Amino acid sequence: MSTARRLFTVDGEFRMHRAGYLQSPTLAFETWGELNAAKDNAVLIFSGLSPSAHVASSEGDPSPGWWQDMVGSGLPIDTDEYFVICVNSLGSCFGSTGPASIDPKTGDRYRLTFPVLTLEDVAESAKCVVDHLGIECLHTVVGCSMGGMSALALCVRHPHTVRRFVSISSSARALPFSIAVRSLQREMIRSDNKWKKGNYDPGDPPITGQRLARKLGMITYRSAEEWAQRFGRERATDPIRVDDQFAAEFSVESYLENHANKFSGAFDPNCYLYLSHASDLFDLAEYGGSLQSGFERLKLDRTLVIGVRTDILFPIVQQRELAEGIATVCTDTEFAELDCIRGHDSFLVDMDAFRPVICKFFESCC
Amino acid sequence: MSTARRLFTVDGEFRMHRAGYLQSPTLAFETWGELNAAKDNAVLIFSGLSPSAHVASSEGDPSPGWWQDMVGSGLPIDTDEYFVICVNSLGSCFGSTGPASIDPKTGDRYRLTFPVLTLEDVAESAKCVVDHLGIECLHTVVGCSMGGMSALALCVRHPHTVRRFVSISSSARALPFSIAVRSLQREMIRSDNKWKKGNYDPGDPPITGQRLARKLGMITYRSAEEWAQRFGRERATDPIRVDDQFAAEFSVESYLENHANKFSGAFDPNCYLYLSHASDLFDLAEYGGSLQSGFERLKLDRTLVIGVRTDILFPIVQQRELAEGIATVCTDTEFAELDCIRGHDSFLVDMDAFRPVICKFFESCC
Repeated sequence: MSTARRLFTVDGEFRMHRAGYLQSPTLAFETWGELNAAKDNAVLIFSGLSPSAHVASSEGDPSPGWWQDMVGSGLPIDTDEYFVICVNSLGSCFGSTGPASIDPKTGDRYRLTFPVLTLEDVAESAKCVVDHLGIECLHTVVGCSMGGMSALALCVRHPHTVRRFVSISSSARALPFSIAVRSLQREMIRSDNKWKKGNYDPGDPPITGQRLARKLGMITYRSAEEWAQRFGRERATDPIRVDDQFAAEFSVESYLENHANKFSGAFDPNCYLYLSHASDLFDLAEYGGSLQSGFERLKLDRTLVIGVRTDILFPIVQQRELAEGIATVCTDTEFAELDCIRGHDSFLVDMDAFRPVICKFFESCC
Repeated sequence: MSTARRLFTVDGEFRMHRAGYLQSPTLAFETWGELNAAKDNAVLIFSGLSPSAHVASSEGDPSPGWWQDMVGSGLPIDTDEYFVICVNSLGSCFGSTGPASIDPKTGDRYRLTFPVLTLEDVAESAKCVVDHLGIECLHTVVGCSMGGMSALALCVRHPHTVRRFVSISSSARALPFSIAVRSLQREMIRSDNKWKKGNYDPGDPPITGQRLARKLGMITYRSAEEWAQRFGRERATDPIRVDDQFAAEFSVESYLENHANKFSGAFDPNCYLYLSHASDLFDLAEYGGSLQSGFERLKLDRTLVIGVRTDILFPIVQQRELAEGIATVCTDTEFAELDCIRGHDSFLVDMDAFRPVICKFFESCC
């Protein structure tokens, strides 16, 4: 497989936010475009929980990326103007060190000996890559979903490193509905006999638990309105297995089945548990004792908060809270409430809605 | 245990709506109040998926019922005025024949040999009890959640048997979001190794799958707004087990854990699968080919449709659809859109909101 992935190894111990450290962790990243002489055109993208650093295709890796229509020459995040960086989150399994990696101290996989992961660790490790690239101040940091919280962690901890912030379908901290959903997804994986307290055979992972977790994920990533329009009560075209009266009967059940089949096996279960848990833990209010005190630590020139009305995982009320909070310290803050029907996933699938808003933000920066 | 439960056994074969039949099934039911001489004061209540026929306490069974504050002397459904009946749904496990019952043809439990269950079967079997009690026409049929669809099945199939209809947090048919949720709940149970394709040891049921399914249930029965107010990011008071970093950390996780513990073991897993599937199958549009043709078969004097703004399982848009559809054939139709915060479960826990609406309906019938 052709890859544009570059690796950076942290020199020495990387201290984790909660406790413990990693010995010389590796960060996998990709870049697009050129860093200018002033080194002031760098855009750092933080992904959601599951994607790799492969945001878009490039000469080194022509396969389409997870935000293929958003990043590239002539696209909203225009690589003719900007130097774009994406780092695979620490704790993930696409090149960066995570629970599925070998612990150099033991020669075995970390598994559950990996220290508690927080989005602060994701932010700090990404900053190591930014430093390594010789960039002192980022033009903009963009964070999608969980990545919005990672981005916020970077902004609040290194306020002079980020000039602009684009938050996409994210929030300042998780609320109990999304905590409940993620906690249940983790329990599905942990309840699978094959999980074996994290010591599963990598060739025989807890695929049943992963499939269930992915289906619950899809239920919260999309919206009831979309599915009502798209599937209604349409029956699945695959014949119902006669020996199983509970097999998929409706189209929506086949759809979930197909998504679960595609995802399972593609993501390490322990990595999933750590990143999911990290999403629950992040809380901007830990910076000073309240959300407002957290907002007051930000030093942003400009902010764009984009949210989607049908998002149930990062609901619009939280996006408004984020926008209003940042607006108290950054007068140039715009809140774009999009009327997309495809819920939380809209930023990945409804380009017609997202393109103009993101395009306008970056164009007016030039 | 003291019980007010009465049993009625259907004489001979009970033909199921889809296919097959049950040999002399039993229906468990309870009644409150007295049937008057004209036999025109009977109110039949259809429950949601999981409750028994024990709606309220009585002399025979003083334990509190699932709608204790709604049915009784001087309460909104006033047993000084009305003769109230509730039948444990066919397919359930609280006295009525279901998959956990003994098939008289084989002497073994039905398990998955139980025929496909529909809400039409739930309605028709309840009608057997009504007939048995010598009631030709019901004053009112009340249906909560799944029970609203069972009630609708009765109304559309026996239009002259029901004069008034109260639908509570229900709909004319399931949409793909709720189908997806229930399908996933069923898959959680079926994925548990202990389920054994329905042939589990009753003393060792698939409790893990049931617990997961119950937690997903709770996520869809309540609302994100309620939990944000009630739990926020409060930590669980139970100490975190040090050997398990993924154990419950937030209060909302402990809350789900407590609910799962209470429910599991109290409901037969196969019965749950059948009733859950029946909820997906019901579609008023099967009566004549469209929802409108279904509505046109109703002969109701008066209807009350109650829905809750924060309900994600039976969303308010579906309740409005139901009210507007019935209004085309029953001019005396009222739609009450309640601003409760506790989601789908509000009818069980937010009596202050439901009491006045139901009270007004029944008082004005006297």
